[in-house]
Amino acid sequence: MSAGQAGTTYVELLKSRDWEGLAALLSPDVVYEMPQTRERIVGLERFVRFNAEYPGDWHLSVRRVVADGPSVALWLEVAVGSERMDACVWLDLSADGLITRITDFWPEAYEPPAGREHLTERW
Amino acid sequence: MSAGQAGTTYVELLKSRDWEGLAALLSPDVVYEMPQTRERIVGLERFVRFNAEYPGDWHLSVRRVVADGPSVALWLEVAVGSERMDACVWLDLSADGLITRITDFWPEAYEPPAGREHLTERW
Repeated sequence: MSAGQAGTTYVELLKSRDWEGLAALLSPDVVYEMPQTRERIVGLERFVRFNAEYPGDWHLSVRRVVADGPSVALWLEVAVGSERMDACVWLDLSADGLITRITDFWPEAYEPPAGREHLTERW
Repeated sequence: MSAGQAGTTYVELLKSRDWEGLAALLSPDVVYEMPQTRERIVGLERFVRFNAEYPGDWHLSVRRVVADGPSVALWLEVAVGSERMDACVWLDLSADGLITRITDFWPEAYEPPAGREHLTERW
């Protein structure tokens, strides 16, 4: 499986809540990190459980899959009810194509700082 | 120039505040978006000026460059004084290798929600 296929498959398995399929894509000692909260989950079983227990009826759409050698970057749109968020996900793959590290960013909306209104428009 | 080289060069030109070099890498009608603030900057001149005027003595380090065809994903660490932030940057390239679209995410730190302490460790 190419890195790009691994990235696309990772999203598809999450979408379909296919936890067995997801586990088969992960290294047993996979490390999952969320730098914004400084949280880390170590090991395949805990990571699958984290996803299975994740609250809310969330739905994923892919904005970008960029893959190169052992690295994949995913820009996802996450919908929970009427709320929309973006996620930026970085996957590292082992030589045999298993995911060894996942780094998730969940950027939140904020008000723009003053001083750049002469250059920007809003949507 | 390959997509990966374009991504690396983009960061190097920002690092060295080489605004002429940066301009040469951009499509004249480049679109820069920050989805968290719903801000958009249209056009090379405004985007270069936005960077030149950006406040603070910021320094960039590359965590990942992932490039594939017309897409580049950059995970950067941004230091301003003793403060450290991550940035996730998505570049779209034209057929002739110019950057046509830049999407920046600036994920901020937040407190982890309750209910997953049985799976996570903190750092």
